[in-house]
Amino acid sequence: MNQKQAFQSHWSEAELTDLATRAFQGLGLTQADAADVVKILVLADLFGLSTHGLSRIESYGERLLVKGISAQPTITVQAPAPALRLVDGDNGVGPLVGMHALRAAMEAARQCGIGMAFARGSNHFGPISPYSLIAAEEGFASVIGSNATTTIAPWGGSDARLGNSPLGFGVPNPGGSPFLLDMAMSVVARAKVRNAFKRGESIPDTWATDAQGRPTTDPRAALDGFLLPVGGHKGYGLALLVDMFAGLLSNAAYLTHVKSWVDAPDEPQNLGHFFILIDTRLLGSAQWLSERMMDFAAILHDSPAVDAARPVIVPGEIELKKMAQQRADGIVLDPATITLLMQHAGGH
Amino acid sequence: MNQKQAFQSHWSEAELTDLATRAFQGLGLTQADAADVVKILVLADLFGLSTHGLSRIESYGERLLVKGISAQPTITVQAPAPALRLVDGDNGVGPLVGMHALRAAMEAARQCGIGMAFARGSNHFGPISPYSLIAAEEGFASVIGSNATTTIAPWGGSDARLGNSPLGFGVPNPGGSPFLLDMAMSVVARAKVRNAFKRGESIPDTWATDAQGRPTTDPRAALDGFLLPVGGHKGYGLALLVDMFAGLLSNAAYLTHVKSWVDAPDEPQNLGHFFILIDTRLLGSAQWLSERMMDFAAILHDSPAVDAARPVIVPGEIELKKMAQQRADGIVLDPATITLLMQHAGGH
Repeated sequence: MNQKQAFQSHWSEAELTDLATRAFQGLGLTQADAADVVKILVLADLFGLSTHGLSRIESYGERLLVKGISAQPTITVQAPAPALRLVDGDNGVGPLVGMHALRAAMEAARQCGIGMAFARGSNHFGPISPYSLIAAEEGFASVIGSNATTTIAPWGGSDARLGNSPLGFGVPNPGGSPFLLDMAMSVVARAKVRNAFKRGESIPDTWATDAQGRPTTDPRAALDGFLLPVGGHKGYGLALLVDMFAGLLSNAAYLTHVKSWVDAPDEPQNLGHFFILIDTRLLGSAQWLSERMMDFAAILHDSPAVDAARPVIVPGEIELKKMAQQRADGIVLDPATITLLMQHAGGH
Repeated sequence: MNQKQAFQSHWSEAELTDLATRAFQGLGLTQADAADVVKILVLADLFGLSTHGLSRIESYGERLLVKGISAQPTITVQAPAPALRLVDGDNGVGPLVGMHALRAAMEAARQCGIGMAFARGSNHFGPISPYSLIAAEEGFASVIGSNATTTIAPWGGSDARLGNSPLGFGVPNPGGSPFLLDMAMSVVARAKVRNAFKRGESIPDTWATDAQGRPTTDPRAALDGFLLPVGGHKGYGLALLVDMFAGLLSNAAYLTHVKSWVDAPDEPQNLGHFFILIDTRLLGSAQWLSERMMDFAAILHDSPAVDAARPVIVPGEIELKKMAQQRADGIVLDPATITLLMQHAGGH
């Protein structure tokens, strides 16, 4: 990697994958494990989800360096029943544990039609849509979730006791665009509150509460308070369900038992995830599924738009379009991320 | 059943079950099939979900009488893989098809650790929490969904193309209260808009749109328009996912292909459902699960309430408390429902 490349603004997928794999090797991972982690993070960048892409080398790297995350974990997989897998991530990098669990669930689903993996002993595993895409490309519909550090108050409560747990879904579309839905449980991301504060703007009272749990329009008060879940008690319930599957049933930490990687970067978080995979090839032919998926999308697209400039879209469209565009034109990353990747890649 | 009973206000579960079973037999169902339907509807009433309980005898009965629903369907179950079941409801009463699919999914989960049933050829199957409770009592965590007649516009669209599809979850708690979450995808039920209109009150602009798809505070305009999904594009995505699993993948109707039982009561709706069941007994001992469930609920309950009169609750608490109270004091039903049950029960 020479100086010229450090300043290039558009990277090919192969170049970034190579650089990032060497960076994670520099942080102590084996080449195969680094490749798993990078597979998820590069897909995140291709989807335009840069906050959950290779920029994570910063936080993952810090925790690997202080041994808060294990660089060479011994990941084990148990099968207590034909379609169930229990994955112990041994405090490995999140996307590495995630890829092991995804593969274990796909293997179970291949055997039984549906398969599920519970993962414990993990860390932040990136966004969900990359996993859903990998699954969809192999014919699997998916329901995937993870718990997270606490940032949301219980509905009607006044301190942070549950995480902004992501929940994602995918449905394959042979020869076409899969359905990909990846949602966190808050109305908006914390970054949106921070941006409003920086611009001196007020926020809708549906976004967050103050430190006492009361809805607020003041972004400063909101930054001291808690994000509100989508749909009030409905999002609260959904966030709990994700934590019950990802944390409680997986035998990982849950709710306030999840350690904050910001407050205690050198301690294991014991995050948990779950992966439910369904082999759609057992439900009908590829042509049957493709025709139904195309018809489904067409029905939605045909709804007259309220704003002609913003036609109706189907979840996943934005990410898949961004991926196609970046695969054609190259991927743009924050220069600070490139610099960090190069530093860690060092002699590798 | 004598006249005295017609005017009693508190019914025992056994009395109501007996009366309602005979009512569905009067509508042409076999005793065993009627018992399945009544199991779900009486649980709904016990939970306090009276709009989804025995009051449904009215709409189910109307459609049975005009042969829009088949009173004696031939329900079939295929097993394309060890953990998958494909249920054809043959246009039977919804809760009957639902109970067949629930049992099929539980049987698959008993064998494989996780099991899934897709149901097609069905009708409105009641609320989800009764199914989740039955599953939880046998040790199964559940993810259950159904599609529905179209009442919601796509996000950014301006006509009704998707249903207010319910999605529900359950997690067992050996010896204690299970977690039960049953949510529709709209911010509020249509009845709340109707009530605001009757009272001459305005509604929050987050509840519904007018006929052009624009958010409105006028309940009359909202009644001509569409309900808004929870969390905007997030609820839209979730509603689509439920329809993809319940309708598209199950080989049932989906989106605008679902027939309205109001507009065409004599035609099959071909609704679809899905049931994912997970055998939690394979994940740890009953004591392990019970301890974690109690701890989970305690963490949430301990969050100081914003309003001291409204402590934090966990999904399912309200319904289970109502059930315990009604099992002790008797169930109160709308007299019109009792009258209708008695009419249909007739000579049975």
